[in-house]
This record gives sequence, C-alpha cells and structure tokens, in this order.
Amino acid sequence: MAITGVMRPGHVMLNVLDIDESVKHYCEHMGLIETDRDDQGRVYLKCWDEHDWFSVVLQKNDSPGMDHMAFKVDNQASLLRFEENLKKFGCNVERIAAGELNHCGERVRFDSPTGHTFELYTEKEVYGNGLPTTNPAPWPEGLQGMQAVRFDHCLLYGDDLDGTVKLFVEALEFDVAEQVVDGELQIAAFLSCSHKAHDIAFIRNEEKNKIHHASFLLNTWENVLRAADIISMKDIPLDIGPTRHGLTRGQTIYFFDPSGNRNEVFCEDSYRYPDSPVLTWTPDHLGQAIFYHSRELNDRFLNVVT
Amino acid sequence: MAITGVMRPGHVMLNVLDIDESVKHYCEHMGLIETDRDDQGRVYLKCWDEHDWFSVVLQKNDSPGMDHMAFKVDNQASLLRFEENLKKFGCNVERIAAGELNHCGERVRFDSPTGHTFELYTEKEVYGNGLPTTNPAPWPEGLQGMQAVRFDHCLLYGDDLDGTVKLFVEALEFDVAEQVVDGELQIAAFLSCSHKAHDIAFIRNEEKNKIHHASFLLNTWENVLRAADIISMKDIPLDIGPTRHGLTRGQTIYFFDPSGNRNEVFCEDSYRYPDSPVLTWTPDHLGQAIFYHSRELNDRFLNVVT
Amino acid sequence: MAITGVMRPGHVMLNVLDIDESVKHYCEHMGLIETDRDDQGRVYLKCWDEHDWFSVVLQKNDSPGMDHMAFKVDNQASLLRFEENLKKFGCNVERIAAGELNHCGERVRFDSPTGHTFELYTEKEVYGNGLPTTNPAPWPEGLQGMQAVRFDHCLLYGDDLDGTVKLFVEALEFDVAEQVVDGELQIAAFLSCSHKAHDIAFIRNEEKNKIHHASFLLNTWENVLRAADIISMKDIPLDIGPTRHGLTRGQTIYFFDPSGNRNEVFCEDSYRYPDSPVLTWTPDHLGQAIFYHSRELNDRFLNVVT
Amino acid sequence: MAITGVMRPGHVMLNVLDIDESVKHYCEHMGLIETDRDDQGRVYLKCWDEHDWFSVVLQKNDSPGMDHMAFKVDNQASLLRFEENLKKFGCNVERIAAGELNHCGERVRFDSPTGHTFELYTEKEVYGNGLPTTNPAPWPEGLQGMQAVRFDHCLLYGDDLDGTVKLFVEALEFDVAEQVVDGELQIAAFLSCSHKAHDIAFIRNEEKNKIHHASFLLNTWENVLRAADIISMKDIPLDIGPTRHGLTRGQTIYFFDPSGNRNEVFCEDSYRYPDSPVLTWTPDHLGQAIFYHSRELNDRFLNVVT
Repeated sequence: MAITGVMRPGHVMLNVLDIDESVKHYCEHMGLIETDRDDQGRVYLKCWDEHDWFSVVLQKNDSPGMDHMAFKVDNQASLLRFEENLKKFGCNVERIAAGELNHCGERVRFDSPTGHTFELYTEKEVYGNGLPTTNPAPWPEGLQGMQAVRFDHCLLYGDDLDGTVKLFVEALEFDVAEQVVDGELQIAAFLSCSHKAHDIAFIRNEEKNKIHHASFLLNTWENVLRAADIISMKDIPLDIGPTRHGLTRGQTIYFFDPSGNRNEVFCEDSYRYPDSPVLTWTPDHLGQAIFYHSRELNDRFLNVVT
Repeated sequence: MAITGVMRPGHVMLNVLDIDESVKHYCEHMGLIETDRDDQGRVYLKCWDEHDWFSVVLQKNDSPGMDHMAFKVDNQASLLRFEENLKKFGCNVERIAAGELNHCGERVRFDSPTGHTFELYTEKEVYGNGLPTTNPAPWPEGLQGMQAVRFDHCLLYGDDLDGTVKLFVEALEFDVAEQVVDGELQIAAFLSCSHKAHDIAFIRNEEKNKIHHASFLLNTWENVLRAADIISMKDIPLDIGPTRHGLTRGQTIYFFDPSGNRNEVFCEDSYRYPDSPVLTWTPDHLGQAIFYHSRELNDRFLNVVT
Repeated sequence: MAITGVMRPGHVMLNVLDIDESVKHYCEHMGLIETDRDDQGRVYLKCWDEHDWFSVVLQKNDSPGMDHMAFKVDNQASLLRFEENLKKFGCNVERIAAGELNHCGERVRFDSPTGHTFELYTEKEVYGNGLPTTNPAPWPEGLQGMQAVRFDHCLLYGDDLDGTVKLFVEALEFDVAEQVVDGELQIAAFLSCSHKAHDIAFIRNEEKNKIHHASFLLNTWENVLRAADIISMKDIPLDIGPTRHGLTRGQTIYFFDPSGNRNEVFCEDSYRYPDSPVLTWTPDHLGQAIFYHSRELNDRFLNVVT
Repeated sequence: MAITGVMRPGHVMLNVLDIDESVKHYCEHMGLIETDRDDQGRVYLKCWDEHDWFSVVLQKNDSPGMDHMAFKVDNQASLLRFEENLKKFGCNVERIAAGELNHCGERVRFDSPTGHTFELYTEKEVYGNGLPTTNPAPWPEGLQGMQAVRFDHCLLYGDDLDGTVKLFVEALEFDVAEQVVDGELQIAAFLSCSHKAHDIAFIRNEEKNKIHHASFLLNTWENVLRAADIISMKDIPLDIGPTRHGLTRGQTIYFFDPSGNRNEVFCEDSYRYPDSPVLTWTPDHLGQAIFYHSRELNDRFLNVVT
C-alpha cells in the first residue's frame, strides 16, 4: 500500500471553558457534527467528509489549549514499530486502553521535546460521511455554517523545535515539507506524512506545550469568503484573513473559539510528494511566508497561543 | 516514510500524428511546457507544478494512442519488490536502459492483462516548477492557456479488467477507490496509490490496449470554465463538459488533441485514505456515475478510444 | 434619475399543472420564498434579494406556459407615456385593477405581435430581502437549494419578431443588446432596459405565445455548479449545462419545472450601457452563440417550449 | 431609453510623480491598456472591457491626487439640462473644447462643494474592447496582470459633504444608495446613477479635494485573490484586503500606485434599482460597514488620501 505508517491527523482534543458555547461554535458556526458525549462530559465532533467517529473532542477545562493530538496509523505493525522508535528516542510512552475515548481503540501516548502530548492509534469506529457508499451524491444536504470538510492539521509552539522535528522525521517517518530558517536556526517546520503541505507544524517558542491553531479544510476560496462572512455575522473574534500564506500557499482565515483557542479554515492550493523539494523561507521574507499579501507580521498572530 | 512504493503517475507517452500541431495543442492551449526533444524526434513536456523533467512524451506515429504510461517509485528496494511481484504475476518484464528517454533513469517495463504497456522507474532529473525553492511565489508568471497543473491519471480500456485490477492491487499495492459493478461483474475500477480518487482507471472493453483519456489537473472550477472557453476559442473538438463526475466528484471537461487522443482537465473535489470505503456505482446509476448532472450516457464518450 | 421608464422585469406568472409540486420545485430546490397565496389559489414567490412582494406567480392550469410577464415602471408619468405609445402601436391595451394580484397596484396589460401578454405597473408592496436596511449582513441565513438571487428575464418564442422588437424599442424604450441575424432576417433579439445583457429576449418561431424559459440570477459560477448538483440530487430534468452562452457571456444551466416549463439559473458575465455596440451573431456561429463550449445546437433546447 | 442622463464614470485623470513607473503599474500590474499619449505627455489608458478610448489619464505632477473625474452623459439635451442645473446650483461651470483631451468631445467642467473638479461629456471615440462586435469571444487573449475590467468609481474626501450630495442628487439626478449616518450627520454617501451600489462616493473630511481611491472592477472573488498575489509578487504597497465591505457588499483589495494614489480592485456582489431602499450604516457598525470581516477601522485606510 502506497500510503503507509502514519496516515493522518486523527483527532485533536481541545480544552474549552464552556461546553455549550463551544459546541455551538464548532457545530453551528463551523459546521462540525456532534456524534457523541461521554460520561466525563466530553463532546465528540467530526467534519462532514470524514468517515471515522470523531476528529475533535471538546473537554471542559479551566484554561484553553490542546490536551493532545492523535494520529491514525495504518496497522498494528506500524504502531509497534513507532512505539519502539519513540521509546528509543527517549519519549515517555504509555498505552491508553481502548474505549477510554468512545469509539476509539487502544492509543499509544507519548510526549514530544516541545512538551506536547501526542497519540497514535489504529482503530476508530466508522460513522460515515453522510453519504451512502453506493451511488453517493457529491455532498450531503443540511450542512451548517462554514461546512468544514475535515480536521486538517495543528500548528504548535514549543521550545525544543529541533528535538521535535527529529522525533517526527526519525521516529514517525514524516517529511519536512517547508521550513523557516534563520541562518543555521530552524524557526518553523511544516511536517507532512501525506500529499499535504502539512499534517502538523511547529514554531520555535520559549514556552513548551502551546497550540497556535487547529485547522480545518474548506473546499474553495469562495468558501473562505463565506466563512469570513459568517465570522462577522456571528460575531466571532477574527484573527486575520482572508489571505494567503506563502508557506503552503494556503488560502486562509483565522479566528478564535469562545475559549480563545485559535481556529483556521483554509483552502489548499498545493500538493507534495516525498521527492518534492523542501521549501525554505528566510527572515527577510518572513512576512510574505506567513501573510503573503500584507507581508507584515502581526503581534497577535505570532504571540497569542493557548 | 508515509508515501511509499508507487508514488505517482510519472509520465505518459502519447502517439500523435503530427508533432508540431500536437506541441501547439499541449503547450499553447493546455499550458504544458516543452523541456526537451530527442534524436528520435520525441518531444518532452511537463506541467508547470511538476518538478521532474517531463510528464508527457509526444511520439510521432501513424495512429494515435498510448505508447506507455510510467509510474515513479520511491526507491530501488520498492522497484525490485515490484519487479519480482510482476514476474510472479506472469507479466512480461524487461529493463529499459537509463537514458533511453532523456533525463530518465532505468525503467522496468511490463504488460498488463488488458494489453497496456506500463513502466516503473525511480530516477528522473529535476527541472523545477518555475519557482525558487527559497521564498517561492504561489505561482509562476507567463503560463499559457489552460495552465494545467500536473499530469494526473489515465483512463484505459481493455478486456481483462479483473486481471489488471488484480495486478495493480497485488503486485503494485494500489487500492480500488471506486468501482462500477454490474451484479458480480466489475465494469470499471478507479485505482489509487495516493490521496487521489484515481491514479489510474480501467474500463472493461472488448478490445485490448486502448486509452480513453489522459487527464491533467486544474486548480479550480473557475479554471475549468476558462479551459472550456479556450476549447471554443481555439476550435478544439469538445467531447463533453463542463460537468461533474459522480465517480470521484471531479469537476471536468473532455476534449481531443489534434490526433484524436482524448484529454481531460479537471478540478479535484475529494480525497481518500487507505481506510476510506470503496465507493460503488451500479448500472441503474451509471449515467450519474459518469456525468453527474445530465445522468445520460453518451456514445462518443463511451466508445471513442485511441 | 438615471434609470428611468421601464426599470425591470417585475414578475412572471407561470401556468403549472400541480401547485404543490411546483412550490416544492421553486422553493425547496431553487430557493425562492413563498410570500402569499390568494383566493384563486395562486401562489406568490420571490427570490431572496428582491424587495418587492413577489416576482413569480404560480397559477394552476391544464397546460404549462406563461400567463404574462410584467415590468415595473418608475412612475405614473412613464406609465401613461408607455400606455399611449402602446395604443398608438396598435396593441390591445387594458387596465387591470389594483389588488387583482395581491400586493400589486394597477397594471396596464397589452399584447405583443408575437402573441404574448405583458403588463406594466408602478406599485408593488415591499416585502424586503430578509436583511435590515440598517447595517445589513451581505446575505441572509436559511436560504434553500440554489439560492436564486432574483427573477432576471424571460426568453419567449413567437412569429412576428420584427413587430415585437419594434414594440419594445419604440414604445417601451428598450435597446437591442445582442441579436442573431441570418442575412437580412433577425432570428433572435436580446432586449435590455438596463445594464443587463437582456431583460427580455425573443426568438422567431412559427407559433405564437410560447415561452422558452424563465431565468433567475445566481451570484457565481460556483453556484452554477451547486445548482447542477442539486438538479441531479433532486432528480430534476436537466436540459443542458453547466455551460456558457456566447450571447450575453452568461454562465448557465437549464432544467424543467414539474410542469415542463424550462428554467434557467445563470451567473452574469457582462454588462452594457446604452452606447455599447449591438453584438451580432451569425448563422455560421449559431452553435457558439447559444452554447459557447459545445458549439452544437440541440433539438430539445431549440424546440421544446411551453 | 431606460438609462438616461449621466450614464457612468467616464474617466479619472490622476496626478502621478513618474509617468513610466505609473504606466508600468497600471498596465503591467493592473492590466489596463495604453491607447494614446498627447503632446503634454499625458498617457491615456483603458480597461479591457470598456469601449471608449480611455478611462484613465495619467498626468505628471509634483504631487499625487485627482485632477478631475468625468462622467459620460447620454446626449446633448441631458448635458444642457445638467449644465443649467449646475449653474443654478452655484457651481463654477466652464466648457473645455473638444480635443483638449485626445479622442474626447467638449466637456462641461464644474467644481463641487467638496472642492473636487468634475466634468461631463457626451462624446468619446470608440476604441473597442478587443473583441469583434460580430461573434465575439467572452474575453480577449493577452490580458496582463489583474485584468481590470472597467474603471468603476472613485471615493473622494471633502468638507461640504451635504452640499456635494445635494449637487449630485439634485443637479445630476444620482441616488443615494448607501450612507453612513452619525445621528443627524451624514458621514459618507455612496451615490449611484445606475444598478451599481456606487458610481461615486464621498466621505466627510476636514480638507477639500482629496481622493481616497480610484476603483476598478474584477470579475470574481478568485480574481481578487489573484490580484492580491500580484500585489505581493510585484512588491506593490498593500493597504488592506482581500476582504469584503459591509457597505455595497464589495469583495475588495486596496493598494497604492507608485505615486501614493490608492487603487481598489473589487468584485461586485450587489445591485440596485431606483426603488431599492437606501441602506444606512451607523457608527456602532462602522467597522463592519468598512471592513466586514475584521470589523476594525484602520488609520491608514481612513486617513491617507491624495
């Protein structure tokens, strides 16, 4: 099989201050679908064009941020190989029992040098994408708000960027697709296990274990406009956009959930293969790398993380 | 590495009746770029957002059709594994020396039960996508015509569909992404080695070794309209479109090159993973499977092949 | 005031075989909004971005077709001038009392040489476009289906094209914006009282008093695709499209309501002023004039009228 | 004729510091076409989908700004009526001889209470839109850069807003389409002589005779993205965008020409008729009125004028 090992970001668990407000934001405004709640009060959501039971879990907490991000792995052999790699790498690795999250199999939890918690798993129950597998329509009726297509990636902030990049490349077989480099120092790394310009990305930052944003795919630039309109109509705090990134070419808009977690919705405009060149951005083009149109950095965008 | 084995369709060699007319069609009208000619008079072309030296080779011939289609493989170990698989499968397998095609390494040639010639290779020189690898713009200036982004896939016709599907799945580790099934009989198979709904597709047909179309990616549905306009402005024979396929959700238009080979340009509107369900289309929805809007089969589309 | 005289197509009254099916088609599928029913069982509809109370009236009848099409005139002075012009022109002119159609003022009814019934009026009650007039959002929530923006124009078939064009130009002060001409004979005339390429159009035809289609505006080519998808998802009979017209440059799709009346939804791609040149299409380009991409006439499109 | 009186903005004459740099900006980057130069060194430009000989005149000057804006009037009778109205209104009115601007007939020049210079004229030679008037394609080949479609409107700043709005409404028969009102005070007025949300707009400002921007139409939101990309690729100073205005619903981006004059390119997303309601924006929604997505005023956008 030509896609092997880590297949994709499987879910992100976000800490939120108020479950009801958050569900309204992610479902009514962004278009995710609630698929379950558990006895801890956690809410399970998915985007419409995902088949697995959930891709976002909302968990009540006193402060916002990311609890963990999990990747779906193709099979048990890969999972065991990765677990071994992670242990050799020196991560704290533990197994979380199947069913700890509803509908999800056993997870291998590990920490990264940037202080984030990640998990790998091979099994999640299938919920479906709202379309039959025989003679499906191109899209289901009844979608709400921004009609987010899938949970796509996270951008995380942390101190030991070098260690975490090494971990993802060597232990988990990701590629560096794009990077920001200042002299010898890597400032940012966009890592891919797929044709996507990023399945996860990291920015070097003094503090450990921060999330910059969780990102969701939209189909078209016209849908980015529609998302922007909804942000204003629903009085959602905008961060920046619509605009394009130089990094990844993504057509994007950023905003905040009611707890202050930053969200992105974006339309892809590039693809990659393992033999694609690594694209490098330099400090003199950092503005363009991040906001291709304004070419101006923005304190809020750079420094507000949860 | 998470994309392994066969990475992608690497090139298609097309037989054309007149080289000059064909170069005009593929370059001025479709937006490919001529990158070389060889001493056999073959012309090498690439789409703008491909890095390798060529993805289309035009070869003068008395009749149109496909000479062969080649896939790029991630490394020598995979190539050897596939070569072994192909021999076990019973294919005629031979090695073509590096340099037989300019800029291309050694190729492993084999035939399929449907009578087509395929090749695998691991090395092709890099030409670049017209953008620097440091601080690249999102697109290069000076693109022509339809501005095709990449060679995407071929749809081929042949008799032993079962054998060829088995070959691609078992020997080359492709997945069946979508299919048309009439009772027990598979009529069409869309095969993927990637996130794409198809890297190659086959239709069951009495005659061996026919090509229905070679397909090229466009970025947006708006570019499909622009391609349609160019088809009329340049008096290119249209087959059908703009429309959408039910199969793959592609937003598409079909037309013919000056030799009668069918081309598609299309905008993707779906993605898949190895654990995505196989989508099946049945004879009562065949019209919708092929032309989602008209839901009517079209003799020319079904029966004209080269 | 710079827009004077006839302002716009105000409404079309369509004969339909079954009111419930028709309401479902025009509201659920096309996105019009029901605003009233009267004691004759007639149903009043409007598109979302129109302010007047209705732009479509559905009337039960044994056969499909157009009862009449009405234009809104800027003021009583213009109405009286037009009424005088129409009488001099030799039309049968009568006044229909205010309130005969709910929410609509007195109408001046007249017949055209092509056998159609038209009306002029100056007053219709305001329903609003679903947005406040203070600090409005760019679009209202809760729109259905194709989200048609406005009733835009009709294309009518009839015998005395010369007479009807003369009537609209001389008595009602329309311009010919575009035309199809075969030698000395005008085959089709697209008439405008605005910046639009057509507010009404006529095709020469043996039989009097036929309607080819009633047309509704969409905002974008992407919405034309969405409309096309809905046509298939809701099993609406497609006529042709998505495609572009050479005439008017419109990006279009045609289909039928449950009674067999043809509808168009389209995205504008041109504008005109009174001093814009008349655009002329000739028989050798008739295919391109009508379907710019296929350049092929289509019997159903040309000959099925109601 | 249903469009009467003032038909449209006919041209704007802009003061620029350097002709060559400006021509490069307006032609290579924005896509206008140079159609003439005169013995004063003034350069005449037009957008592709305009028929008259020019819609922009560049004039070398020591400081940037607008020399004058001119409107095309439908005929001599209207011109005489407007001239009479302007004199009664108390404007300084003079006639500029035909030929003072190449290809343009006699102009009636007047000043507004905000200190701007405007002109009216009825004759300008036809250059054409690059397409034949018989069997035209939907667009011409060879367009450059942003491919601006037409000169659309100007937004001007000046002190006596009340007087100038009164002038345009009473003497020139424009409508107020949208406005910003603070209590009794009108802050901004968007004036239309057409179906457009604005043919000219004014903001109340202490200083007379300032221009905020000259605006040019694009066909689609996708072309706004393309314009934004070009702004960065060509290192053009961006002001703000891509975004949407609440006022007019326009999808927009702002930037500066090499002399510091602000330009807008935008995609229309509304239409109006004389009986459309006036849309009013209030100070508590001023951010949304101007930048619908960010809802934040921007000093540079509000205060930099030329």
